[in-house]
Amino acid sequence: RIRGERLWDSLMEMAAIGPGLRGGNNRQTLTDSDREARLLFARWCEEAGLTLAVDQMGTMFARREGADPDALPVMLGSHLDTQPTGGRFDGVLGVLGALEVVRTLNDLGIRTRRPIEVVNWTDEEGARFAPAMVASGVYAGAYGLDWAYGRTDAEGKTLGAELERIGFKGEEPVGARKAHAYLELHIEQGPILEDEGIDIGVVTHGQGLRWIEVTLTGKEAHTGSTPMPKRVNAGLGAARIIELVDRIAWSHAPLGVGAVGRLDISPNSRNIIPGKAVFTVDFRHPDLAVLRAMEAELREGAAAIAQEMGLGLAIDDVQGFDPVAFDPALLESIRDAAGRLGYSHRDIVSGAGHDACWMNKVVPSAMIFCPCVDGLSHNEDEAITPEWAAAGTEVLLHAAIETAGI
Amino acid sequence: RIRGERLWDSLMEMAAIGPGLRGGNNRQTLTDSDREARLLFARWCEEAGLTLAVDQMGTMFARREGADPDALPVMLGSHLDTQPTGGRFDGVLGVLGALEVVRTLNDLGIRTRRPIEVVNWTDEEGARFAPAMVASGVYAGAYGLDWAYGRTDAEGKTLGAELERIGFKGEEPVGARKAHAYLELHIEQGPILEDEGIDIGVVTHGQGLRWIEVTLTGKEAHTGSTPMPKRVNAGLGAARIIELVDRIAWSHAPLGVGAVGRLDISPNSRNIIPGKAVFTVDFRHPDLAVLRAMEAELREGAAAIAQEMGLGLAIDDVQGFDPVAFDPALLESIRDAAGRLGYSHRDIVSGAGHDACWMNKVVPSAMIFCPCVDGLSHNEDEAITPEWAAAGTEVLLHAAIETAGI
Ligand SMILES: NC(=O)NCCC(=O)O
Ligand SMILES: NC(=O)NCCC(=O)O
Repeated sequence: RIRGERLWDSLMEMAAIGPGLRGGNNRQTLTDSDREARLLFARWCEEAGLTLAVDQMGTMFARREGADPDALPVMLGSHLDTQPTGGRFDGVLGVLGALEVVRTLNDLGIRTRRPIEVVNWTDEEGARFAPAMVASGVYAGAYGLDWAYGRTDAEGKTLGAELERIGFKGEEPVGARKAHAYLELHIEQGPILEDEGIDIGVVTHGQGLRWIEVTLTGKEAHTGSTPMPKRVNAGLGAARIIELVDRIAWSHAPLGVGAVGRLDISPNSRNIIPGKAVFTVDFRHPDLAVLRAMEAELREGAAAIAQEMGLGLAIDDVQGFDPVAFDPALLESIRDAAGRLGYSHRDIVSGAGHDACWMNKVVPSAMIFCPCVDGLSHNEDEAITPEWAAAGTEVLLHAAIETAGI
Repeated sequence: RIRGERLWDSLMEMAAIGPGLRGGNNRQTLTDSDREARLLFARWCEEAGLTLAVDQMGTMFARREGADPDALPVMLGSHLDTQPTGGRFDGVLGVLGALEVVRTLNDLGIRTRRPIEVVNWTDEEGARFAPAMVASGVYAGAYGLDWAYGRTDAEGKTLGAELERIGFKGEEPVGARKAHAYLELHIEQGPILEDEGIDIGVVTHGQGLRWIEVTLTGKEAHTGSTPMPKRVNAGLGAARIIELVDRIAWSHAPLGVGAVGRLDISPNSRNIIPGKAVFTVDFRHPDLAVLRAMEAELREGAAAIAQEMGLGLAIDDVQGFDPVAFDPALLESIRDAAGRLGYSHRDIVSGAGHDACWMNKVVPSAMIFCPCVDGLSHNEDEAITPEWAAAGTEVLLHAAIETAGI
């Protein structure tokens, strides 16, 4: 069994880095706070006797040698970066839970056959540099390294330059390090487990995702002196498409969801009819055909709105991610572990994207969910109990041992 | 007659200061560019033999002495500040047209009985520091000086500190300088004069204005993993109220207009359901009762939307401005001047607010409009012809001479 208090203390110590304004965290990727978090994690890894490597995307791999050093390792991990107004557990639990697994193996003097590596993926959130899960995407061969380096934040800084600036542009080629399996513990970020009073979610699928950037071009003009029929209002067009996105999502509920999270209108002046609006639609569905249909409905509906209003319309894909089915054998070992430990569990679909979704393309992968209060995430109020964290980590420990062998 | 070429050259020289990205101007109030514009204007005033004074709000008064120095002056003016993506003529024509009047009087050796003062009002646009027309509002007693000093821009800088920084916090108490009359030449910022092929608009009324700031508070949550029924989406609420604003404006068209020009959602991240939206509604109508009705419809409709969606709602008045009727005698002298000079003219209502609207509360005031291309303003493409500028300035000259006496 793991030491729940030690895990919780580490979670709280990490949460002190890059504090948010309301009790959560603002520790966006490749900021000074992210650097501080990485250095703390590196120190803890060293104290646990792990060997640290950093790849060219800044992803950190902390290795515990196995009895058979030639065997491919079992990787356990997630991410330490957060949203601008993020919670303390999203991602962090998966990294520090993995670290707790290793600490427990150390305490018990257990030597697994395969090496175990604790992973901290760079830029999972995608809030500062889109897309999300970019480093695991490069690892899985979905993105090129130079393309990833060229991602820019709102201030025009590039991911590559920021990696260099914080001293985490490693030497190791991305993806060169192979793995036998990848396991990720994460908070559910949805309400199902808590509502049903279940300890462990066995994540069978990740739903597909589409991030679609819409740019509307109208005509900047004076709000007071431009007659209503002469207006080409890009802000009003955005409002209509936001409403359309909601309608499309509802028409595919409960499995389909969607919203516009990011929106900028310009020139953003009180008495100017907006001449331009740029916003991103986020659609999700576990069924690829339906996800594609949602996107098609958006394209068609947005074109009709733009045409009727005389607005210019451009639609760009920011990120697409097809639904994922996780590895059946790993899922079975998670179910077994939960059962053995006496935890209630159920199969569940992940509403969010995770590094495990990319990893699953190149390495057998699976995920373990623990509940979170009110299903709330990407919010500073995100919360879990120490018991939930410990239960998830214990299941991770047992599944890891089974997968790595003794 | 005025010298149209000299006027146009001055307009173009001024437009070179604080250039925009697409041929217009970004010369927002109390920026370094505004300072540069003020210094150029001061130099031109000095060259024209005028005496410059600056009041505590930074408003510049350049005086040409009259035959009777004890008589109250006739003020002619407008503003040199622009929107962030503004045109080259909005405001600027009124100041440099007034300067051209004085230059012409100098050329012709005409001494008016009353002094003439050319005025450049601070922060007419209200884009950087809301509300609009703040310095003329203080002059008219609508706002207190300290309240005006405390206005903050998006970066948190105050109007008072920025006045000081650019060296234009004058000594003269605001409003201490009295006037016999105030005349303002301005581009129409609407399409009527151009559409009808008319040279001069005699501005009988200014319509009333309401700037209303709406704050919606929802619940930040993960877009992928939060079920549709659990969402409290402040961005969607904003979209619905933007649509409502448009509906209210149309229902009172053609006299009523309205739009949302400014909108910020937070945390503005692609995969977070917006927890907060702050935006301003701009409503206009020439009839106070209807303007009040529009505002009431907004308050009622917004409350219903917020209640249905479970959103928190706060509504704040940023600026209110009641409809204005300009001085009949001054209007008659403008009509006379236009007729005498052989320019076609018609009565017109101003769609935009102007410093003359505040001035009219304390000094008999009136406005002269010239056409602008396609009615476009608050847009870098705003355009007028040299002939339109000259015609408006000539009418200003004649109305000023008649009002000041010889
Ligand atoms: N887990 C998580 O929040 N990942 C970010 C990508 C997404 O929006 O699903
Ligand atoms: N003329 C002008 O654009 N003034 C700014 C105030 C308004 O929005 O009417």
